[in-house]
Amino acid sequence: MKDLESLSASQAAKAIAKRELKALDLLLSCLDRIGQRESVVKAWVSLGKENALAKAKSLDKGAIKGLLHGLPIGVKDLFDTYDLPTAYGSPIYAQHYPSTDAVSVALMRQAGGIILGKTVTTEFASFKSGPTSNPHDERRTPGGSSSGSAAAVADFMIPLATGSQTAGSIIRPASFCGIVGFKPSFGKVSVAGVKSLAPSLDTLGCFGRTVEDVALGIAAMSGDHALALVDDLHNKPRIAICKTNDWSLASKETAGALALARFAAESIAKGKVNEIVFPETFANLQETQTRIMLSEMSRSLAFEHEHFTKKMSGQISEQIAEGTQINYSQYADDLLHSKSAQGYIAELFSNQLDLIIASSAIGEAPFLKNGTGDPVFCRAWTMLGLPCINLNVATGPNGLPVGVQLIAGLGRDRFLLSAAKAFALALPDPVLRDQASG
Amino acid sequence: MKDLESLSASQAAKAIAKRELKALDLLLSCLDRIGQRESVVKAWVSLGKENALAKAKSLDKGAIKGLLHGLPIGVKDLFDTYDLPTAYGSPIYAQHYPSTDAVSVALMRQAGGIILGKTVTTEFASFKSGPTSNPHDERRTPGGSSSGSAAAVADFMIPLATGSQTAGSIIRPASFCGIVGFKPSFGKVSVAGVKSLAPSLDTLGCFGRTVEDVALGIAAMSGDHALALVDDLHNKPRIAICKTNDWSLASKETAGALALARFAAESIAKGKVNEIVFPETFANLQETQTRIMLSEMSRSLAFEHEHFTKKMSGQISEQIAEGTQINYSQYADDLLHSKSAQGYIAELFSNQLDLIIASSAIGEAPFLKNGTGDPVFCRAWTMLGLPCINLNVATGPNGLPVGVQLIAGLGRDRFLLSAAKAFALALPDPVLRDQASG
Repeated sequence: MKDLESLSASQAAKAIAKRELKALDLLLSCLDRIGQRESVVKAWVSLGKENALAKAKSLDKGAIKGLLHGLPIGVKDLFDTYDLPTAYGSPIYAQHYPSTDAVSVALMRQAGGIILGKTVTTEFASFKSGPTSNPHDERRTPGGSSSGSAAAVADFMIPLATGSQTAGSIIRPASFCGIVGFKPSFGKVSVAGVKSLAPSLDTLGCFGRTVEDVALGIAAMSGDHALALVDDLHNKPRIAICKTNDWSLASKETAGALALARFAAESIAKGKVNEIVFPETFANLQETQTRIMLSEMSRSLAFEHEHFTKKMSGQISEQIAEGTQINYSQYADDLLHSKSAQGYIAELFSNQLDLIIASSAIGEAPFLKNGTGDPVFCRAWTMLGLPCINLNVATGPNGLPVGVQLIAGLGRDRFLLSAAKAFALALPDPVLRDQASG
Repeated sequence: MKDLESLSASQAAKAIAKRELKALDLLLSCLDRIGQRESVVKAWVSLGKENALAKAKSLDKGAIKGLLHGLPIGVKDLFDTYDLPTAYGSPIYAQHYPSTDAVSVALMRQAGGIILGKTVTTEFASFKSGPTSNPHDERRTPGGSSSGSAAAVADFMIPLATGSQTAGSIIRPASFCGIVGFKPSFGKVSVAGVKSLAPSLDTLGCFGRTVEDVALGIAAMSGDHALALVDDLHNKPRIAICKTNDWSLASKETAGALALARFAAESIAKGKVNEIVFPETFANLQETQTRIMLSEMSRSLAFEHEHFTKKMSGQISEQIAEGTQINYSQYADDLLHSKSAQGYIAELFSNQLDLIIASSAIGEAPFLKNGTGDPVFCRAWTMLGLPCINLNVATGPNGLPVGVQLIAGLGRDRFLLSAAKAFALALPDPVLRDQASG
């Protein structure tokens, strides 16, 4: 077999489960690809090569452990791992060796996944970027905060990697890198053992190259194994486009991606897809999200701020200072406003809609010197706790991928995966249709 | 000054802030008390005596840092601390030295609190008990899982200690030890850095000897500093008694305590207080809570179960086995049922009620050999996410304390503290009235 590293996670998992593919061969292909490309992409903080090889050999000999049997996985360096150092993207934790795995990592291993290494995260999953470049253009960012995970999956170094999103840290890098990124419903995956940034917002998810890949990943990370089987859509979903109040920020390529997405949406909805506009009260949810995030960050990073101020970047120190200045009663009001918006959207999903389609990012990936990009189009959906999935739908003026996100009601993760698969199959470009499965 | 260790947290904090009391003197008194009593009570896993003494001296010299300036605090050994080992009540973590403080601990230090040591927790905050005995009768349990924190506060070793509740781990030990225990609304205090047992349920709180003490504690742990000031009640609260579906399990002393509580409740309600009964659909919430807890435990402890089965007790291994057997779709249904019950209770609190009074435990503290007691009367309230506070209201046939819990609507923590203060002041026994403040 050639080019094993280009197999999708679900293809590889199926072949391994049938004993048609050895976990060791897949791993060696991935390591080979990493060897060729890492000096350019810089996706990895650490690789546990020897452990991974030993694990692959033992998995090849033993019974099939679970959904991820034999799959090499990249873990964002915000997740604790008992056998690899975990630095949270900060020099403060350069020598940090956790005693345990994050719960989601332990569950991936329990399902037979091979944790190959830790991928680059921005500092504490906020904005100060690491060295990773976009596999499509090394001068550009892969997005953040899950920079290394998105880049490694897009570059065929690994089929599956974990991510976390507090503002737009899964959906935005997935869009910039042209892969599938899935942020499930808030609380679907336990955040225990993952460095906390803003507990009301932090949500774990994963990256793959197909909808079935991310379904597999979240099935294992959450323990909801039935998610792994992505059903066909049985009914016509009720779909709306939501441009949000920040549409003036969208680039032409993002507008184009959303227009293309509308065609695919109309194809699966078997009818016209209209736009929805949130009522004035909920027009500025991204501002509410920003204040909640900053306020919670100032508490979540209190220990680091007290003991290691000098090892924190100017960017994060500014965020903490800003967060500290937000009065608690403003923060409490923001939480209430968020809850009320959650109630509004729950009504909307229960009465009128099954799916919202929205832009994933402002446009193509910015140049590295300009940071990891703006999460403005993700903030509100994260705060609402809704499951979101990015699919690549277009190519921008610089030849870089531009995605859209599909968003379902809270807890409708399984439906969202089915809808995303159907949506991908309805895209005009046959290469993009490969995102559905296989 | 004599008997400094018997000062309440709020009394001591006020005296220190006025520079009428030295943090060092208070600490020395507490250490003295610990020296006299620890061989009987066994509340502590570790003491950071030298660090605490140095900290007290430096706090006595510096400006007032915050709400807890100079107060010695006990931290449940489920919370990470950067300067003291953290074993989560398990031999697996006997040599575990975290790199950071739990967020709530960092915030207590930021407010000037002195972390004196780590208090005994049951194994991973579940049922396998540690060595701690009840200060009122050394043959009996202080309750669990926050055993050492409750016992240390009740025994005047410290004025304030942290706890966590997943089923009944704050309210029950507070009742058994005759002190004030406060479990605020779900999510009020960040759980980051506290070993996760069941993420949908885990809630952090604290113990003190007065309502004002626990208000101070949660004000610091949450960052909501306004909570520290417990207002007088301005309006007559609408109060109901809720015996729950498990009332047949209640002992005579628990029935007596609830009857006494009704008098105090009628005094602050200025009228008759009736009973409420949940509709049939929500009659067995404690069973729903139990399944959610077991199912989540089986995932939360996946790492330990994989690597250290032999170092886990039979009790917790059984719980994990039980949790593993709960099918995910049952668990998902249970979460939906819990959400629907939360909706029901939110309506109830918004339309008819301000406060519910319920029993905290089945009766007096059981003998040590029978475990840490049954959390049955706490399970539903924890799952509903409601703020709960235990007050001591009666003495059982063996001379041991028996509490009741006051419960308010989600997010109404500040009101609950005011109501609890007014309620305590309405109790017939003048000694019990001291729980209000001062």
